[in-house]
Amino acid sequence: MKIRVGVVGISGYVGLELVKLILQHPEIELAAAMDAAETGEKPVDEIHPRLRGACKLSTFQPDKDRMAELKLDTVFLCTPDKVSYELVPKILSAGIRVIDLSGSYRLKDTASYSSWYGFHHANDNLLKSAVYGLSEWNAKAIASASLIANPGCYPTSVTLALLPLIRAGMIETGSDIFCDSKSGVTGAGRGVKPELMFSEVTENFRPYSPITHRHAPEMCQELEWDLNNFTFVPHLLPINRGIISTMYVQLHQPLSSVEIGAEYEKRYTGRPFVRILGSSRLPELRAVNHTNFCDLAWRLSHGGRRAVIFSAIDNLGKGAAGQALQNFNIMHGFDEGIGLR
Amino acid sequence: MKIRVGVVGISGYVGLELVKLILQHPEIELAAAMDAAETGEKPVDEIHPRLRGACKLSTFQPDKDRMAELKLDTVFLCTPDKVSYELVPKILSAGIRVIDLSGSYRLKDTASYSSWYGFHHANDNLLKSAVYGLSEWNAKAIASASLIANPGCYPTSVTLALLPLIRAGMIETGSDIFCDSKSGVTGAGRGVKPELMFSEVTENFRPYSPITHRHAPEMCQELEWDLNNFTFVPHLLPINRGIISTMYVQLHQPLSSVEIGAEYEKRYTGRPFVRILGSSRLPELRAVNHTNFCDLAWRLSHGGRRAVIFSAIDNLGKGAAGQALQNFNIMHGFDEGIGLR
Amino acid sequence: MKIRVGVVGISGYVGLELVKLILQHPEIELAAAMDAAETGEKPVDEIHPRLRGACKLSTFQPDKDRMAELKLDTVFLCTPDKVSYELVPKILSAGIRVIDLSGSYRLKDTASYSSWYGFHHANDNLLKSAVYGLSEWNAKAIASASLIANPGCYPTSVTLALLPLIRAGMIETGSDIFCDSKSGVTGAGRGVKPELMFSEVTENFRPYSPITHRHAPEMCQELEWDLNNFTFVPHLLPINRGIISTMYVQLHQPLSSVEIGAEYEKRYTGRPFVRILGSSRLPELRAVNHTNFCDLAWRLSHGGRRAVIFSAIDNLGKGAAGQALQNFNIMHGFDEGIGLR
Amino acid sequence: MKIRVGVVGISGYVGLELVKLILQHPEIELAAAMDAAETGEKPVDEIHPRLRGACKLSTFQPDKDRMAELKLDTVFLCTPDKVSYELVPKILSAGIRVIDLSGSYRLKDTASYSSWYGFHHANDNLLKSAVYGLSEWNAKAIASASLIANPGCYPTSVTLALLPLIRAGMIETGSDIFCDSKSGVTGAGRGVKPELMFSEVTENFRPYSPITHRHAPEMCQELEWDLNNFTFVPHLLPINRGIISTMYVQLHQPLSSVEIGAEYEKRYTGRPFVRILGSSRLPELRAVNHTNFCDLAWRLSHGGRRAVIFSAIDNLGKGAAGQALQNFNIMHGFDEGIGLR
Repeated sequence: MKIRVGVVGISGYVGLELVKLILQHPEIELAAAMDAAETGEKPVDEIHPRLRGACKLSTFQPDKDRMAELKLDTVFLCTPDKVSYELVPKILSAGIRVIDLSGSYRLKDTASYSSWYGFHHANDNLLKSAVYGLSEWNAKAIASASLIANPGCYPTSVTLALLPLIRAGMIETGSDIFCDSKSGVTGAGRGVKPELMFSEVTENFRPYSPITHRHAPEMCQELEWDLNNFTFVPHLLPINRGIISTMYVQLHQPLSSVEIGAEYEKRYTGRPFVRILGSSRLPELRAVNHTNFCDLAWRLSHGGRRAVIFSAIDNLGKGAAGQALQNFNIMHGFDEGIGLR
Repeated sequence: MKIRVGVVGISGYVGLELVKLILQHPEIELAAAMDAAETGEKPVDEIHPRLRGACKLSTFQPDKDRMAELKLDTVFLCTPDKVSYELVPKILSAGIRVIDLSGSYRLKDTASYSSWYGFHHANDNLLKSAVYGLSEWNAKAIASASLIANPGCYPTSVTLALLPLIRAGMIETGSDIFCDSKSGVTGAGRGVKPELMFSEVTENFRPYSPITHRHAPEMCQELEWDLNNFTFVPHLLPINRGIISTMYVQLHQPLSSVEIGAEYEKRYTGRPFVRILGSSRLPELRAVNHTNFCDLAWRLSHGGRRAVIFSAIDNLGKGAAGQALQNFNIMHGFDEGIGLR
Repeated sequence: MKIRVGVVGISGYVGLELVKLILQHPEIELAAAMDAAETGEKPVDEIHPRLRGACKLSTFQPDKDRMAELKLDTVFLCTPDKVSYELVPKILSAGIRVIDLSGSYRLKDTASYSSWYGFHHANDNLLKSAVYGLSEWNAKAIASASLIANPGCYPTSVTLALLPLIRAGMIETGSDIFCDSKSGVTGAGRGVKPELMFSEVTENFRPYSPITHRHAPEMCQELEWDLNNFTFVPHLLPINRGIISTMYVQLHQPLSSVEIGAEYEKRYTGRPFVRILGSSRLPELRAVNHTNFCDLAWRLSHGGRRAVIFSAIDNLGKGAAGQALQNFNIMHGFDEGIGLR
Repeated sequence: MKIRVGVVGISGYVGLELVKLILQHPEIELAAAMDAAETGEKPVDEIHPRLRGACKLSTFQPDKDRMAELKLDTVFLCTPDKVSYELVPKILSAGIRVIDLSGSYRLKDTASYSSWYGFHHANDNLLKSAVYGLSEWNAKAIASASLIANPGCYPTSVTLALLPLIRAGMIETGSDIFCDSKSGVTGAGRGVKPELMFSEVTENFRPYSPITHRHAPEMCQELEWDLNNFTFVPHLLPINRGIISTMYVQLHQPLSSVEIGAEYEKRYTGRPFVRILGSSRLPELRAVNHTNFCDLAWRLSHGGRRAVIFSAIDNLGKGAAGQALQNFNIMHGFDEGIGLR
């Protein structure tokens, strides 16, 4: 018998991606499609015409009692931060596990929410018990978690690339890390905003929220790096999906490409979704979009004293819905790649 | 009576842009359309259908005697490096001034051509007399030059942004400069290459030639910065035109946004094509494409110890044809903005 | 001394295009930038960052007294239908000429406004005196008009293509005409609508408003064709600008390509903005975008009994702002191409 | 045990799509990756970086003996017409079934190949035995075929839409049918052509091969319609994939939307990949791309005497690789939707 899951926030791009992945997953049944923004019941295939003939559910408002009646095992939240913040404890109280794709339980410190997210976070206990769902690094904790804080799209692209080098002491302690990231438009969600209209985005390109983006503290928390020495600048690409992060770091001592490659291999060998391209190839979005892969590559400069690290992911895949499902697989003891290849 | 000019390399994107600008310029007459790749005479408006009804010339092979017969005052070269290298001395010998948009006379050192351009450069004298045509910085030398080495597109976007800060001693001597640039596809020219096919570029994004791009030594030469401390990584945007460069620098001492702005104002006030957006706005390609403007903005981090500098230009405009025409104006004592507003 | 003009609706795409054209026009001065949607005065170059350094005006609410004080000769209305409907008589009453780019005075019959535009039109006199500004066909009336109803973008692309053949009796009376048109997104204006968000439009294509689009009656009125025999189906292209109309018609008797070409030549020879590509070339948007040209081509089938007619225009150029300025030129006795080449 | 299949022409877009589908199909094993253009063995994941970690095969030249040694059950040909023409009899002679995605066995008349395909076709017998693989219409013959001529992308979009109405006698005999089709760029294959470079396609749109496209005779053959009364005009969309066909037909007698819908329902009820949107919805490419669906909709004009029929497919999905796999399923007695949902 399949495991019954629900999705809240089905009308957004992440919600759609998650539904598509769940429908292909051999062990899961999508038993509930919820959306706080849709009043009344609305057929999912009217919201997303591509699901015609593939999904017969109608939406309803998220409600923990109805979730319990439906015997949901896990609920995925593709909801705004504040909505997730309020829904999570309710759903957990019904004995249902939660994979939250918002930022509302990612930072460990309640105070950070006031400064970075603009709302007061009072649930210190849940922040402590929430497991940051970076699948390749926290698999053990993920396996036994009841609440997963699924990583942000930018943080996934940056932490997968930098964690091996930082943990190995290869990046000079206290030095500057510069992260120049470029993302497709779905990363901004499906809200209707003037600056995201087609004619404002196509044949255009621009930085936004430099230094002050809320994904910066999330990255620094996971990298254990001082925010003062961390400069994060995201840019908006005129495409639907995908993130390339280009990271500039200072190495502790001159290294060769082979040494860096060896460290990556050590950390990621056997993990199906990190592909190490090495120093002779370069990543591109076409190779990762519509997949759960993260591609990594690097180049050295200044005689091996500086490195440029590249990572590529699909912001809707490994950066959101894909990793959420990967975490679901880990939580249930499945092969982590089921339904994602 | 209008000044008669010729363009070599009319079939490319820079050639087209230059023709469009020349046709709008009140003081110039396009008297010769040349192209080494077109055998036989070919109507320009067959090569570029948008010029139908606007340009009645046909192409011919570049030939210095014919240029002289046509009484050309100046010839613009939108040709590959090697072609320019050979044409320049011939055209100069006919008493015709040259604005060369290739890289063949930009570097001051013949040896650099073997390592970066892959051909042996034997014309040391011309390298010495060529004037690097960065309009806002070298106007005096440009005014009396017979050979202009028109700057590369990436170097224009980077040097206009960094020269003021470096000359003012604001960037820490010997520190690292990281330039993360993103360019539209026309920057790669109109050659037919598999990796530039529509389906390979659209909905895609990727870095290319990191660290080893030939524009890096050109930037370092003009910035007088050690190439070892300079990391340049270009990326290919899925759009036609425009360059955004995001530059990460270490300041000599903590600075305020106002101090940086004051330095930019000092250098560029009165220059019509540099727009200083300051620290509250951000550049975007839509604002500069199809213009000769360079937009500059910046943000500080680490308590003013680090700065992120942004610049935006149209690679075909200020990064190529626009600046070439601006230099032409300066050479002829015109207002530098004629035909470019 | 330059002629002083004003533009209402400056914040939209047509408004921006018109400002750009006016700034390049040697005989006009933009003396007033108005916008009903902007409360308070707002610098035009904040609304459109590309105008920084090029336009120093600030907006104000459209007001006929202020227009009179500013001694405006002509006002261009780039406003919604209903707004134009109300503004036109007021501005005319101040002795100022109007070029209205909305649909509010294009149809000759007040009743049509209730059924096609959804508002009651009570100004029968103005409908009668308004001149339909199809420059190539109504130049005489345009020259002496005080109110120009500037043609819609789709109708411009269709009427320029079909009028010569219909007037020459080449298209079978009473037969079906099928117009399959494809337009860039700016044709829908700058309103913020969910279906025009970047991620909904890019890598997408779709028909919309088939048969019932309000430009159909406008076309039929000008073509003097029965709406019953006229099928118009517009489609939305994932690009910024440009319209290609592909029209399928039944000829009265078998014709050759040469005969059709001769008819087009007869009508358009000497008119600078219609380019007749003939039966061996085909139009494309790149050749007309950012110009005031209309490109025409055709192919025959069924032994010359059926014809496919192609036309291409820039919806913001010849389909809106360009033609408006062309009409302005005609009204003032200038060469119709001034400022448009 | 899985059925072993091979693909020839793996380096193209259709080849890539087919590999992706085969890798997800539970009953098939990709046992051979062949490409006539690749000399030497080349890893498939170097040709298509997105397949890294998913496909370990290397290419080899198509060779019937090696195919036999590999015990292939079926070979898919994603090859140019002429290559398919020559390979098909060889592979069949080795007792291996063939699904040919080229046009080389679609037309029933050898003479047509000289006029439409530019080569002399001498294999009359194979043309007769080849089954045209329009899955929804020829399932019975497909089930027992050894050679499937997989339909062209445009013909799939047109025949699925028109066959029901023609077979029901709803379209007036001998009347004109006008097909206005718009396709993404992958429909042109992966050949390197100047007119398909990114900068020539983006922000552009154009018709091509009007009336004379080789898919016209294929459509007329299947529709049993006189080519004289059939006008087919394809256009190139600036997107990767998808076809919208807009068809204009004359009805035998006035019909209601409900009557047309009833006919479509009669033909397609129970077939999983035709979705009937009816007369209140409209198709769009986003809803069909990356699927095997064909979406159909319609509108009436002239009091029900004329109809506009819309169809949408993914040219790489239902228009090529998807339908090929659907036919494979039918040939092997599987549910036709396996691996395609």
